[in-house]
Amino acid sequence: MNNQLMDEFDLIKKYFVPISSIESQFLSNDGAVFKPKKDLDYVVSTDTIVEKIHFEGNEPPDQIAKKALRTNLSDLAAMGADPEFYSLSISLPKAKSKSFIENFVKGLKEDQKKYKIKLLGGDLTASSQLITITINIIGTVPSGQCISRSNSMVNDLLYVTGVLGLSNIGLLNLRKNDKKYSIAKLKYYLPQPRVEFSSSVRNFVTSMIDISDGFIQDCRHLARLSNLEFAINIKNLPISDIDLLSYEERLNAALIGGDDYELLFTSPPAHKEKINKIAKLHGLQITNIGHVKNGKNGQVTSNSIPINIGAYKHF
Amino acid sequence: MNNQLMDEFDLIKKYFVPISSIESQFLSNDGAVFKPKKDLDYVVSTDTIVEKIHFEGNEPPDQIAKKALRTNLSDLAAMGADPEFYSLSISLPKAKSKSFIENFVKGLKEDQKKYKIKLLGGDLTASSQLITITINIIGTVPSGQCISRSNSMVNDLLYVTGVLGLSNIGLLNLRKNDKKYSIAKLKYYLPQPRVEFSSSVRNFVTSMIDISDGFIQDCRHLARLSNLEFAINIKNLPISDIDLLSYEERLNAALIGGDDYELLFTSPPAHKEKINKIAKLHGLQITNIGHVKNGKNGQVTSNSIPINIGAYKHF
Repeated sequence: MNNQLMDEFDLIKKYFVPISSIESQFLSNDGAVFKPKKDLDYVVSTDTIVEKIHFEGNEPPDQIAKKALRTNLSDLAAMGADPEFYSLSISLPKAKSKSFIENFVKGLKEDQKKYKIKLLGGDLTASSQLITITINIIGTVPSGQCISRSNSMVNDLLYVTGVLGLSNIGLLNLRKNDKKYSIAKLKYYLPQPRVEFSSSVRNFVTSMIDISDGFIQDCRHLARLSNLEFAINIKNLPISDIDLLSYEERLNAALIGGDDYELLFTSPPAHKEKINKIAKLHGLQITNIGHVKNGKNGQVTSNSIPINIGAYKHF
Repeated sequence: MNNQLMDEFDLIKKYFVPISSIESQFLSNDGAVFKPKKDLDYVVSTDTIVEKIHFEGNEPPDQIAKKALRTNLSDLAAMGADPEFYSLSISLPKAKSKSFIENFVKGLKEDQKKYKIKLLGGDLTASSQLITITINIIGTVPSGQCISRSNSMVNDLLYVTGVLGLSNIGLLNLRKNDKKYSIAKLKYYLPQPRVEFSSSVRNFVTSMIDISDGFIQDCRHLARLSNLEFAINIKNLPISDIDLLSYEERLNAALIGGDDYELLFTSPPAHKEKINKIAKLHGLQITNIGHVKNGKNGQVTSNSIPINIGAYKHF
């Protein structure tokens, strides 16, 4: 673990060594060492969150830590991988360092336990103004069982986990005090990566993506990579039922709002019962929103008409 | 590969996909997948460089890319590991994106070839002002052969590669046009990680560190972790011979200047000939600057007197 803050070594010793792993050699070396487990493939992903862009900056630091970790966990979930390790790089203004880091590490510690993931190391640097956090995450899948974005097949059913658009509704209403917004705000602050569900269904799924750029964009992405049409029924989309907003506002949030971190996946009809059973086991709502067909390849349609994202853009 | 820049997908498709790897699935998924090689341990390290702190910002982008990659390669070298993969996260102002990235990727491509390392993926985000680059690097060593910082033994000889202080001299004289500074400036801009040498000596070395925080600090670090005294002869330090500076200035740069990225390592006297032979094979200068003894444990001494870093700090 390297660093450039004034009391760099002290900060690392006090806060990061206690949450580090054997593999990291308790941060005494330049890097961490691990012995790969047998018959597993390793999955690697990286996500950066920047203050004022991906988070406001005035959130409790433990919440920022969890958001940084969870957006990465969601990337692993999208590939059906089980979390193993992460590396962390933080750049933050010197003035913030101590108080920020103490609470930030508390958040990491809680999520390390929750998601069974170990800290390998990282870097702590000073920045002039804003906080930037990069996490590199490493997961595993049984050899050859990684889920890609491109293997959906004709007649596969299309599913989505959870409720869409909540995070976007939360973001747009952060300053509103009505309690009806609290679930949406919480979803914005604290994504719920579908790690365990993904691990349980990976053998029954043909393609999967986590919805981070908005349902419609990520859905098109999946359709394009399999070069098939995804026929959905917009009315079936699991949108928020919050009664402070119009149907159009809630649908719009579901279609183009970002940061949902729900899973969108395809699975052969033969596995329908199994998929539903696994979701129930995890207490997770899943919705069959359509199916895969030959047709307007690479497009997402509703009633055979390509969904025009522009129509939903400027409510 | 995720991203948040305006023409995010285009930038990735145009510049990063061509330099990506099979393991990254040409950046079509959230993450990369690799099958670990047999009988190897995996080494992971992360380093961040921030504009105005670790680099000026007006350097050619290909040079910034190489510096980012090489500081990480140096961390692998310090552990005796062979480079395999890296992930890259860049936050940069929108205005800079296209021209910057084109040349930046050129630098990555050249160093990918030079150091035989593959791009796994990463993240491209917008920042408000400054460029921040985080690289996560993965290397391999034959199982159990990773070099740590803590295994030096009494009577081991202490070696250092290359010349110390050059990078610091380069940094302090970036604006001077005298050609005599050009090697020093080049060393500041383009570190030379000792990857191949490290790989060749890993079985003959007891502890190793790459000198990034200045010789004396990193040397103490190594002494402390083995809880032994490192007795050096300051006169033997390989310092710059540039005649524009006084002996004191050159020695000072060697002792406390940062960013050398040379290796400091200990090795039993029995391996002396072998070590010298390998260095010669790689065309690399190495210098025996002292030895390891029981005594003032955790300290670095010259003539049995602990070196007082303060004495060299404010020339």
